[in-house]
Amino acid sequence: MKPIGPIPTAFAAQKGELTIGGVGVRALAEAAGRTPFYAYDLQIASRQVERFRAAMPEAVHLHFAVKANPHPAVIKHFMTLTDGLDMASAGELERVRDCGADMGHVSFAGPGKRDAELELAISLGATLNLESESECARALKIGEKLGITPRLAVRVNPDFELKGSGMSMGGGAKPFGVDQERVPALVTEIIASGADWRGFHIYSGSQSLDADAIAESQKASLALAAELAQAIGEAPKSVNLGGGFGIPYTANDTPLDVEAIGEQLSTALDARDEVLRDTRFIIELGRWLIGEAGVYVARILDRKVSKGQLFLVTDGGMHHHLAASGNFGMVMKRNYPVAIGSRMGAETVESATIVGPLCTPLDKLAADIAIPQAEIGDYVAVFASGAYGLSASPVNFLSHPIAAEIVVNGGKITI
Amino acid sequence: MKPIGPIPTAFAAQKGELTIGGVGVRALAEAAGRTPFYAYDLQIASRQVERFRAAMPEAVHLHFAVKANPHPAVIKHFMTLTDGLDMASAGELERVRDCGADMGHVSFAGPGKRDAELELAISLGATLNLESESECARALKIGEKLGITPRLAVRVNPDFELKGSGMSMGGGAKPFGVDQERVPALVTEIIASGADWRGFHIYSGSQSLDADAIAESQKASLALAAELAQAIGEAPKSVNLGGGFGIPYTANDTPLDVEAIGEQLSTALDARDEVLRDTRFIIELGRWLIGEAGVYVARILDRKVSKGQLFLVTDGGMHHHLAASGNFGMVMKRNYPVAIGSRMGAETVESATIVGPLCTPLDKLAADIAIPQAEIGDYVAVFASGAYGLSASPVNFLSHPIAAEIVVNGGKITI
Repeated sequence: MKPIGPIPTAFAAQKGELTIGGVGVRALAEAAGRTPFYAYDLQIASRQVERFRAAMPEAVHLHFAVKANPHPAVIKHFMTLTDGLDMASAGELERVRDCGADMGHVSFAGPGKRDAELELAISLGATLNLESESECARALKIGEKLGITPRLAVRVNPDFELKGSGMSMGGGAKPFGVDQERVPALVTEIIASGADWRGFHIYSGSQSLDADAIAESQKASLALAAELAQAIGEAPKSVNLGGGFGIPYTANDTPLDVEAIGEQLSTALDARDEVLRDTRFIIELGRWLIGEAGVYVARILDRKVSKGQLFLVTDGGMHHHLAASGNFGMVMKRNYPVAIGSRMGAETVESATIVGPLCTPLDKLAADIAIPQAEIGDYVAVFASGAYGLSASPVNFLSHPIAAEIVVNGGKITI
Repeated sequence: MKPIGPIPTAFAAQKGELTIGGVGVRALAEAAGRTPFYAYDLQIASRQVERFRAAMPEAVHLHFAVKANPHPAVIKHFMTLTDGLDMASAGELERVRDCGADMGHVSFAGPGKRDAELELAISLGATLNLESESECARALKIGEKLGITPRLAVRVNPDFELKGSGMSMGGGAKPFGVDQERVPALVTEIIASGADWRGFHIYSGSQSLDADAIAESQKASLALAAELAQAIGEAPKSVNLGGGFGIPYTANDTPLDVEAIGEQLSTALDARDEVLRDTRFIIELGRWLIGEAGVYVARILDRKVSKGQLFLVTDGGMHHHLAASGNFGMVMKRNYPVAIGSRMGAETVESATIVGPLCTPLDKLAADIAIPQAEIGDYVAVFASGAYGLSASPVNFLSHPIAAEIVVNGGKITI
């Protein structure tokens, strides 16, 4: 038997049936018209924002990283709750434009931006986080062509990394941003060009559950921003301190102590260099804001035994949820938090491996976990699925239907 | 410096420019209207079929496993060259129906089939490879409801596995098929029901480069089929011996000796049990038929140095080609065969890591490889990309445009 990850405490059950935003999985399946589906509980997302606000110093602005979940209703929800949105492509820019976002607080990072992407960002008035000197030259040229002063920040590749992060994005040779020692020259050029220099974007890693490591990297980012600003001789309007706030996915993962980060960041901000006195500080979060709000729900199609081992075969799998199958940047497959959504709280009586409908041994939602009695027609719920779920999965693989997406907000369902 | 996989010998270059099916990458990019794109050279696919026919005993029928590449032009090409098509979903069934395939030689396997999928397969007259007793019961019921005699084969979970295969699909507890010892009872039931019992599907693994291991598993499959047929007391009309033929992806991978498989299979077929005298034998291949025919082509957007290391940033990446990024069932990322498609044959002068436009360190097409001088605007070609490429990738990840797909056949381009 293998352990599962921790089921987020926000979820409840009624008469053994999992409820998401107060609605039972059966009613959700009916509303979606099919299984599998993703359901996102926006009230959980709202509570994460509240928790962030309460924990962080007031000077810190919160941005939502749209790449974590680009569902329009999710974007619109965070538009009203956060201070800005961060993009990773022109496609995302188009989405937030269509959602009516305030482009003054939208930024766009990405190591390889096509000319058409730069043009869209500049014409919409979004801030470009420049990733190289040559990208800067292209942006200036496009700004000139359009007759628009581009808003330009510089993404810095810092000498330090976010320790213990799931994905390190600093501290060595990286495709992201400009090595810190070359930043002052680049910013000086931006200012000289007449462009609107916005500041720095310093992103050193993601998916960390270590509050001290995050606090330390934020402190290092503040020191680096001050050092760069002094070398440039001008204060940055804003400094994006990155994100990196992780959520628990597997057994032994413990929730991030956001309050501890807030305390340490508060101290660090109080002690910050004078040159950053009027700077706006941004923390950019995706996964931490929406990850635990999402559940992936599939239906059991078959219950079969092979060589004494029980398999529950569902209509959902890796084509909708690559990360849960362990094929998204993980070295070893560990079980996500998983439950039989139509048998919540029932005593576990056997162990099972939960697989999807695909003809590949990779298509596994949970390996060898303890479950209550579960039959064909029961629902399997995979928690911690609100971020990098459907949009990060190979949805066309084997030409199965795509999963539905449902947004629930205080009992109200939007498809 | 890390090695790359072997570039398929079928590809040529003209004046330093890679040609695919006789057309240069620049012309292909122009025809596609954009980069990145996948290009499939159908003549390479045709030659694989010819090689298979020459190597295999005449009694062996060849099926194309559509899941490897469901592009309609690819399906139509194999419809004319092979003896049948194998499906993994109702979506694939709809595709081959729309391509006009002969449903008498279409089969459908998959560990979790929805009722709607069974219904579609039965009403089209495709053969269902049943994966469990309960799936059989559902199929019989649906056949009765439709008034159609269902064509039913049984997928067998054999006691042996294909040794050295990239993905083992037999030899232990598996979600695929019915454990071999339960097969006679199930088939007896199928025959008694009046359904059209077609035979067995015995699939023990995929992506093997070991001819002896494949030959051995085919021999074991023949013996198992005979044993099961004798227990049942009736000869199977057909036995699908599976596939498993791999192609070289990374350094140290050597091409599969298909001729050696053919010789051993010929001997095994000659010596087969009398009960299989009139049985049709099928080998089902996807990757081996189309894998080496495909190339993924992206354009270099940036050339940047970080801490002394060169990165080429392209407009293509893991969202189009998950497997090349090492995130599809691989434990360790190894380089696919990769070249600068606009500088073929040029002397290698430096080492570079080739990355995509996504904000994640997972988005890597090649790590630390030797390249000729390459500039912004040059093309990067990833070979061995014809199978499990675009359709097996998270195309919506970060909302970038999807790659184009181009089919080339003797200089003729189809978009």
